[in-house]
Amino acid sequence: MKNIALWGIPLFLLLQLTGNAADKPKPSPNGIEFPAGYQNWKLISMSHRVDNNTVRVILGNDTAIKASRSGKTNPWPDGSILGKIVWKQAAAVDWKKAIVPGKFVHAEFMFKNSKKYAKTVGWGWARWKGLDQKPYGKDDKVASECIACHTPVKKNDWVFTKPAVLPKP
Amino acid sequence: MKNIALWGIPLFLLLQLTGNAADKPKPSPNGIEFPAGYQNWKLISMSHRVDNNTVRVILGNDTAIKASRSGKTNPWPDGSILGKIVWKQAAAVDWKKAIVPGKFVHAEFMFKNSKKYAKTVGWGWARWKGLDQKPYGKDDKVASECIACHTPVKKNDWVFTKPAVLPKP
Repeated sequence: MKNIALWGIPLFLLLQLTGNAADKPKPSPNGIEFPAGYQNWKLISMSHRVDNNTVRVILGNDTAIKASRSGKTNPWPDGSILGKIVWKQAAAVDWKKAIVPGKFVHAEFMFKNSKKYAKTVGWGWARWKGLDQKPYGKDDKVASECIACHTPVKKNDWVFTKPAVLPKP
Repeated sequence: MKNIALWGIPLFLLLQLTGNAADKPKPSPNGIEFPAGYQNWKLISMSHRVDNNTVRVILGNDTAIKASRSGKTNPWPDGSILGKIVWKQAAAVDWKKAIVPGKFVHAEFMFKNSKKYAKTVGWGWARWKGLDQKPYGKDDKVASECIACHTPVKKNDWVFTKPAVLPKP
C-alpha cells in the first residue's frame, strides 16, 4: 500500500500530461505548429465563396492586426499570422434570405517569415481540418498546393484578403 | 508677451480636449454611449444578407464571448454587448466568385441589461452610421424600430445571431 501511495501522484501527473498532449492538435506535416488560441484573434475580413458554398472569416494575430489596421500589408510584416476559418454555408433559421456559417470545415493559416519560409514565398502554410483539427497534407510538400492556388495574388504578397474597411477607433 | 506665454499651455490643453471630444461619436438619441474599441472585440459569427446585398460580422465584448463560447446565450447574461458590422457586398478583385466587404455601412449594437433596459425587452439598441459614425434615429424611440424587426426571434432572447461553431481552444 505504501508503494501504491508513493506512485499515485507521479502517475496522476503522467495521465494529466498525456491527456493534454492528446488534446492539442498535431503539427502540420511540414512541421508548422498549431496556432493555439486563434479563435480569439481580431477581425481582418470575411468572404462568401459562391463557387464552393462556403463562408469564411479572416482573423489575424496582433502583428497582423497592427499591419492590417494601418494599411501596411504589402508586404505583411514578419511575424504576421493570418487565419481563415471556413464553414459550409447554411440558410439562417430566422431570416431565410441570410446565409450564415453551418458545419465547420477547417481553419487554415499563413505564417509570414521572409527568412524562415524563403523557400515557400516567405510564408509558412498549414491547415487543420474539422472540429478534431487534423493536420492537412501527407508530407512536407503541403505548401505547394497552397502556393499554386495563391499565385494570382503574388503581387499582393500572396494574400487574397484585403482588410475590410473599419472606422478608426 | 508674458500673459500670452502664461495662457499658452491651458489653451493648448483646451484645444486638445475639444479635438478629442469632436472625434468621439455622439451618443445615440436614446442616450446610449458609443462602445469605443468594438473593432477589437472577438468573433461570434458572420452573415450574408442576399435580400439587401450586405455582408456582416458579429463581434462581442468579453461578457458576450464568454457566453457565446459556452453556449449560454438564452438569455445572454447582463453586460453582454453584441456588435454587428455591416458592409455593402462587393466582388473580390482576385477571385470573382467570392463576395467580400465593400463600402462600410454602419455598426449596430445590442446592450443586455435586463433591469436598465426592461422597457425595451431587456436590451439597449443603438446604431452608428458610416465611417463618421453618426448616431441613427431622431429621438429616444429609436429602439421601437429595432424591436419590431427582431420580434421573430423573441424566443432566442431577441437575437438573430447563433454563434458560429468553433473548435474548442
